Amino acid sequence: MTTVIKGGTIITADLTYKADIEIGGGKIVEIGPNLSGGEVLDASGCFIMPGGIDPHTHLEMPFMGTYSSDDFESGTRAALSGGTTMVVDFALPSPGQSLLEALTMWDNKSTRANCDYSFHMAITWWSEQVFNEMKTVVEDKGINTFKHFMAYKGALMVDDDEMYSSFRRCAELGALPLVHAENGDVVAQLQAKLIAEGNNGPEAHAYSRPPEVEGEATNRAIMIADMAGCPVYIVHTSCEQAHEAIRRARQKGIRAYGEPLIQHLTLDESEYFNKDWDHAARRVMSPPFRNKQHQDSLWAGLASGSLQVVATDHCAFTTDQKRFGVGDFTKIPNGTGGLEDRMPMLWTYGVNTGRLTMNEFVAVTSTNIAKILNIYPKKGAILVGADADLVVWDPKRAKTITSKNQQSAIDYNVFEGKQVTGLPRYTLTRGVVAIEEDIIKTQEGHGEFVKREPVTAVSKALSTWKEVTAPRKVERTGIPASGV
Amino acid sequence: MTTVIKGGTIITADLTYKADIEIGGGKIVEIGPNLSGGEVLDASGCFIMPGGIDPHTHLEMPFMGTYSSDDFESGTRAALSGGTTMVVDFALPSPGQSLLEALTMWDNKSTRANCDYSFHMAITWWSEQVFNEMKTVVEDKGINTFKHFMAYKGALMVDDDEMYSSFRRCAELGALPLVHAENGDVVAQLQAKLIAEGNNGPEAHAYSRPPEVEGEATNRAIMIADMAGCPVYIVHTSCEQAHEAIRRARQKGIRAYGEPLIQHLTLDESEYFNKDWDHAARRVMSPPFRNKQHQDSLWAGLASGSLQVVATDHCAFTTDQKRFGVGDFTKIPNGTGGLEDRMPMLWTYGVNTGRLTMNEFVAVTSTNIAKILNIYPKKGAILVGADADLVVWDPKRAKTITSKNQQSAIDYNVFEGKQVTGLPRYTLTRGVVAIEEDIIKTQEGHGEFVKREPVTAVSKALSTWKEVTAPRKVERTGIPASGV
Amino acid sequence: MTTVIKGGTIITADLTYKADIEIGGGKIVEIGPNLSGGEVLDASGCFIMPGGIDPHTHLEMPFMGTYSSDDFESGTRAALSGGTTMVVDFALPSPGQSLLEALTMWDNKSTRANCDYSFHMAITWWSEQVFNEMKTVVEDKGINTFKHFMAYKGALMVDDDEMYSSFRRCAELGALPLVHAENGDVVAQLQAKLIAEGNNGPEAHAYSRPPEVEGEATNRAIMIADMAGCPVYIVHTSCEQAHEAIRRARQKGIRAYGEPLIQHLTLDESEYFNKDWDHAARRVMSPPFRNKQHQDSLWAGLASGSLQVVATDHCAFTTDQKRFGVGDFTKIPNGTGGLEDRMPMLWTYGVNTGRLTMNEFVAVTSTNIAKILNIYPKKGAILVGADADLVVWDPKRAKTITSKNQQSAIDYNVFEGKQVTGLPRYTLTRGVVAIEEDIIKTQEGHGEFVKREPVTAVSKALSTWKEVTAPRKVERTGIPASGV
Amino acid sequence: MTTVIKGGTIITADLTYKADIEIGGGKIVEIGPNLSGGEVLDASGCFIMPGGIDPHTHLEMPFMGTYSSDDFESGTRAALSGGTTMVVDFALPSPGQSLLEALTMWDNKSTRANCDYSFHMAITWWSEQVFNEMKTVVEDKGINTFKHFMAYKGALMVDDDEMYSSFRRCAELGALPLVHAENGDVVAQLQAKLIAEGNNGPEAHAYSRPPEVEGEATNRAIMIADMAGCPVYIVHTSCEQAHEAIRRARQKGIRAYGEPLIQHLTLDESEYFNKDWDHAARRVMSPPFRNKQHQDSLWAGLASGSLQVVATDHCAFTTDQKRFGVGDFTKIPNGTGGLEDRMPMLWTYGVNTGRLTMNEFVAVTSTNIAKILNIYPKKGAILVGADADLVVWDPKRAKTITSKNQQSAIDYNVFEGKQVTGLPRYTLTRGVVAIEEDIIKTQEGHGEFVKREPVTAVSKALSTWKEVTAPRKVERTGIPASGV
Repeated sequence: MTTVIKGGTIITADLTYKADIEIGGGKIVEIGPNLSGGEVLDASGCFIMPGGIDPHTHLEMPFMGTYSSDDFESGTRAALSGGTTMVVDFALPSPGQSLLEALTMWDNKSTRANCDYSFHMAITWWSEQVFNEMKTVVEDKGINTFKHFMAYKGALMVDDDEMYSSFRRCAELGALPLVHAENGDVVAQLQAKLIAEGNNGPEAHAYSRPPEVEGEATNRAIMIADMAGCPVYIVHTSCEQAHEAIRRARQKGIRAYGEPLIQHLTLDESEYFNKDWDHAARRVMSPPFRNKQHQDSLWAGLASGSLQVVATDHCAFTTDQKRFGVGDFTKIPNGTGGLEDRMPMLWTYGVNTGRLTMNEFVAVTSTNIAKILNIYPKKGAILVGADADLVVWDPKRAKTITSKNQQSAIDYNVFEGKQVTGLPRYTLTRGVVAIEEDIIKTQEGHGEFVKREPVTAVSKALSTWKEVTAPRKVERTGIPASGV
Repeated sequence: MTTVIKGGTIITADLTYKADIEIGGGKIVEIGPNLSGGEVLDASGCFIMPGGIDPHTHLEMPFMGTYSSDDFESGTRAALSGGTTMVVDFALPSPGQSLLEALTMWDNKSTRANCDYSFHMAITWWSEQVFNEMKTVVEDKGINTFKHFMAYKGALMVDDDEMYSSFRRCAELGALPLVHAENGDVVAQLQAKLIAEGNNGPEAHAYSRPPEVEGEATNRAIMIADMAGCPVYIVHTSCEQAHEAIRRARQKGIRAYGEPLIQHLTLDESEYFNKDWDHAARRVMSPPFRNKQHQDSLWAGLASGSLQVVATDHCAFTTDQKRFGVGDFTKIPNGTGGLEDRMPMLWTYGVNTGRLTMNEFVAVTSTNIAKILNIYPKKGAILVGADADLVVWDPKRAKTITSKNQQSAIDYNVFEGKQVTGLPRYTLTRGVVAIEEDIIKTQEGHGEFVKREPVTAVSKALSTWKEVTAPRKVERTGIPASGV
Repeated sequence: MTTVIKGGTIITADLTYKADIEIGGGKIVEIGPNLSGGEVLDASGCFIMPGGIDPHTHLEMPFMGTYSSDDFESGTRAALSGGTTMVVDFALPSPGQSLLEALTMWDNKSTRANCDYSFHMAITWWSEQVFNEMKTVVEDKGINTFKHFMAYKGALMVDDDEMYSSFRRCAELGALPLVHAENGDVVAQLQAKLIAEGNNGPEAHAYSRPPEVEGEATNRAIMIADMAGCPVYIVHTSCEQAHEAIRRARQKGIRAYGEPLIQHLTLDESEYFNKDWDHAARRVMSPPFRNKQHQDSLWAGLASGSLQVVATDHCAFTTDQKRFGVGDFTKIPNGTGGLEDRMPMLWTYGVNTGRLTMNEFVAVTSTNIAKILNIYPKKGAILVGADADLVVWDPKRAKTITSKNQQSAIDYNVFEGKQVTGLPRYTLTRGVVAIEEDIIKTQEGHGEFVKREPVTAVSKALSTWKEVTAPRKVERTGIPASGV
Repeated sequence: MTTVIKGGTIITADLTYKADIEIGGGKIVEIGPNLSGGEVLDASGCFIMPGGIDPHTHLEMPFMGTYSSDDFESGTRAALSGGTTMVVDFALPSPGQSLLEALTMWDNKSTRANCDYSFHMAITWWSEQVFNEMKTVVEDKGINTFKHFMAYKGALMVDDDEMYSSFRRCAELGALPLVHAENGDVVAQLQAKLIAEGNNGPEAHAYSRPPEVEGEATNRAIMIADMAGCPVYIVHTSCEQAHEAIRRARQKGIRAYGEPLIQHLTLDESEYFNKDWDHAARRVMSPPFRNKQHQDSLWAGLASGSLQVVATDHCAFTTDQKRFGVGDFTKIPNGTGGLEDRMPMLWTYGVNTGRLTMNEFVAVTSTNIAKILNIYPKKGAILVGADADLVVWDPKRAKTITSKNQQSAIDYNVFEGKQVTGLPRYTLTRGVVAIEEDIIKTQEGHGEFVKREPVTAVSKALSTWKEVTAPRKVERTGIPASGV
């Protein structure tokens, strides 16, 4: 029993052509003209694209004794509803906790997922145990990425020494380090200063994390990766300063990646100056929204290839949860939604304006990250043999975004009121229709963990180059006796 | 009757996998495991890649009453011998000459080609006739690229006004302007000054065309393209100054491409200081070779994507021809060979050192330019339906480059003495084996002209963006009477 | 009979100290505590600074059969009123006209000047005559600067070849080229396109001269100067693109200077979108006003030293004159006032905000340009022996700028309504009080021409460096016979 | 009884003129033509310049139970011999030690100084005591600069949190933080890795401190200063990466200074590859010497003003002391000499080649640092009332540098064999002739401590700007109740 998507135009990261797609066993089995099969999905007037991959989510993330409000069920439902067919979440060990133990915790949460998923493992402390477990995580658990926080002092933050150690280990294992790049020491100092001055509202969150602290940390992370001999991936690149650091590295041939979020591409800092405390607090995330100049930088980066991936950092807290921070902005839980809106927002503000081609849209929402995570072409591709994670995209379908009819569990939407044109007609997860326009057909637990092999072509090439250019000892005779 | 390439690993711009390839009717008809067919080519231990595309050659180019010494026969034979299966040459109307008339002249030369080819049309003057003929060239002749020379004052050079006019026309037609970027006025002044000072040797060629004049012109060409609303492709980007201008444009989202040559990546300016006049003169080309710092810039650009294509500007003159310039370096015919050596040299210095991945090698030698020229996936791809322009690459095959056994018609080789590791075992042009290791099986006249459609996804997106951001008139009432 | 300024604090480009100043014979004769003399000027609570030098004015400039409305009398009266004690105007030969003849015309106009002045000579065409006259201009006429227009096609514009020739001549003579940097070809094309599209209002003036055309021309001018071996001074640097080109040059050690105008530092492009045609047209100048991002760039350049001088390009046309351009923005005379307001506006927006120190204020309004023009310390200094061109600055005096009580001859002021704090209590020109708060005591014809010697320390050093790094001929034996 | 310097040409940072100088009471009492007085020093054919100020020395610095071998006597003798008339050394408290106690130790050493001197105070740890003592150091001890080490992990190094705290304190006190910018964590890791790999020779010192670790730390220090609201001065800027960070900051108006050393300007990394262990070890300093590309960057920075000061970091160890590091490069004491050679080397390689004007030479060797340290015009100037710290410079005097006849106490010289043209005829310290060509007339103990006031014009302006742009609280009503 197969499914055939008929009458559409296939858009991949590098091709645009009319063809039908036949699906069987959750995979693409044929691509070509005039296919027929069991179930037929009408794609006339539509583009068929690889389903979106969001490499940056925090579903059911523990926080202050509670959890971020979208769990793997509602979160992946929201994802599918917006054309995203895979998410990558973060397993976050507490400092001192075993990586493997943390992974088990996240494995348990993800059993309810409606679409495929994977995990990044966070390195929040350092020891011989961590060093050893990293190998198990890579080789046995199918995880090839490790996240490092340069912010969140006293909690998740690691220092330069720990980062270097972990990056060296990544280099050995062929794994890729991810970095949340903000200078945590300086953020903590600015927070304390602002609170001391009575600046306790949500706008002070933005004041405490200016672009400069992000730019600095990005620059530092890249330097450390370069010294350790591994590529590096900077999450939620929000500003020109960080983007500049990435560009400057890339112009030297350094293998650095940057990931803007759909929020930073389309929303700006004026949100924090809203007179409604709730409105402002709901937008609190790290890094905060920036101004139009930074947005222009990010869009240009996507078009020119200095930034590769658009994500969401989806970490949804309800208004009630946000209100933990009334009177002290540092207690507002950091995070916003976005899983459901990433693809329509990027299409509307990117493709419809001509900032991006359709192929570039596919690249930055799906294909590039699949390559970076080494799951291409299983994911991110429309090829025979690839998983049938597909979205049939209707470029004429339009709506006004509102929390009233969203899938996410929270009570608001940071994109509330935005008009989008370009929405899924169908979203398929491994061949199964999960979304049919407004009808939700997701199946709890359908999602599977996606294993990811280490040692990409890029990490291999980089290792070769580092060997070729490694320090060479000067051979000397007649060395004097030591002065000690 | 089909051909099957068996036992190899397919490398494309984004995939690496083991599979066999079946070829019929000059095209790829199947890709998969365990294929069988008529003729079998053994690819064990080899990589199967899309054949190289060299978008920058000057075969049988008229010069001072004679011609560059490689014609379409020997030139394409040399190309195939090194794994390149398509060349794009330049139809060069004399100032005042009809574009269509020039095209006829080049059509006549190319009938002897051993592999497929196409043409760029040069705009060397401007008039209503040229404006009109550009449409015919694009719509009837299958040419979507127009070359502009900012150098060669008094010959091919056009000024800013002509460039803007031509670029606007490109924008209307969905065509892509190409630019030879050197400030021709300043080059001519420097030439005159050097000659006046008695600096008449080949090294003065390099002195007369420093990186600054290339960087300036590159910057100017990009600005004009941006104002005219079209993408732009800079040929033979040889230096950091030009690369910087391209990067600076791209970081603003401008659609600019850069094309380093294999010569500039691997040879340096010290060649011009060789005490042997012939040695130095044989390396005379524009732009001249640069130093290691510029080379590093170019290599990094290929890895990071700010430069997209490696070409040769193959324009081969014999030593006798070079000697036209004894006593006056400005008379040394500009040009070097490279068609035969581009792929092995780039593999050796790029892939074997880890500067590039194998996939990036395919991208910059074939796939990227196929996309830019809008002939992908007919060319530059390994997909069912694509032309079977393929190279079976043996990464262990090695040789020392020497003019003694080259295909090119000239009597020397600028890469003489370089050791390369990584060479074709087979080169196929539209399914026909043209090269089998050292055995040349090319067929004169086998090559066909490749038509190229205008209006790429990029040019369409750019047009949309330019409309979205177009100047808006301020509506006013009560405008005063004119003062005149 | 002497004058003593008592009780003030002297501010120079590098010193801040309390002292009195005694003046005799138009010069400073003593500086020290407790001086006494004939006339006493009370400077208590005030800063005593070198009078401002505005190196960029167009007084009584011919235009369309009429003249810019401030002549050397009203213009220099306005200058003195705002604390500026010297202006440098431009002698503009028509293409084909003798430089010396043009100079005579300007000499005649300037006899009415109230303060000292000098001229830059414009190079608007090229010939052996111009080449020869440049020497006379430098050696006999005391002019060491030559202005070049890259814009105003069909009128003042010169091409790259002419610029290079003139710059080379400047290098030989130890003179400094000045450049109006906008790509005139592209401006003309954009003008034609806008008019053709019905965009004929003053805002189209801004559309027709975007930052990109200024940045490109700036970059080009600098390259040409570098090749010719002379320093270069870019007038009215208005945008980040031009500033970036200057910075990029300076970071290579190239001797390039940039001159923002007070208008570009404090006014923005929104002025052109004013619904009142007159309001918008009165602000038409080239380059046009830019946005806040460009302003930030210029301010930072003044603080960091990548930009050196604040000028006005004072070229005042009445509203009636501006109305020549009703229905066709290209006919609006280009130019705004500013002579009277430069110093108070820069003090208010620069010193009072902390963007500049008081010493930097002196540097960018007076001392730097005096050094660049080689008239330091006669001008731009407070030293014994220097001309007593001084302003006694009252940092508490405030006003609202309005055309109602300005000295300039025109009927409006582009700074209308701006609040300034910091104004002259006294302005002295060669020891004579010309301004005492609101009382105007200027003397028509008091101003003298200031001769300027060529060959500054910078031009001498640059010549040495160019010799040290000049191309060296490779000595060869056994050069083959020519192939011709 | 006065001294008169007759017949010379005075060169200051902004003036060049012929005049005599009369000295009395250690100060300049008159400048003018035809002066006469007691002792007459013949300056015919010479330039009279402000004596050099070296803001970066480590005389008699404690190290591994011994001391750097030049103490305040031999060190200042060497200084005077080369035209330098003031040094600024570093008081280095051990972590935990009182700043005031450390200062006493350094006061005791400096009693033997032959020329004037001052101290920077190092912040090597952080506590309330340090916070409080900083005020005493500034207000009572006449020290307005605090040094921070980002390298030397486990010894002098401070972390970002400590730096921010100290910088904030500097902002409050109007003091200037100085920074040794290298990422100490990464250096320690690279050292360990190199040693583990058997790379234990002096060349590994360079490998362990690549330009990247300096560039990163420079960038970080500047960001922290910007957040803390104070200017920042980066010592021994040795490479393009660090210079780029400084330039990038300055282009935003940030008040950052950079100080290249004469060693980095003129010596390169090839020294470490010398087959003679002693030769290489004698050149071990941090940062290490770099390549020519970095040198070009530094020279250009001096010419363009993005770098302000040339220093030496003079910290002289004998060959015996250097041999502590045989078998383990990390034990080689870091430091080289230079006090005696800074001025002749910079003149020879800077002024004689045309890279710098003579005025720029004075600026970068004396005047700029006098301004930055707020001791101008007492030092760094030729003005009536200024200290008569003068050098009578003979541009024709030449020598070959050799340790055989140097003043420094050590047994070698890193500039051994360099030809210099341009040497002192006389050096005067507060009016006393200390050097007369090869004759040493220094007086032990003649030198005095120079007090330096805080709150420069720059720090005041910066504070104003930070207030103007400080975060503003959004006033809100109807804030919800806290969620906690």
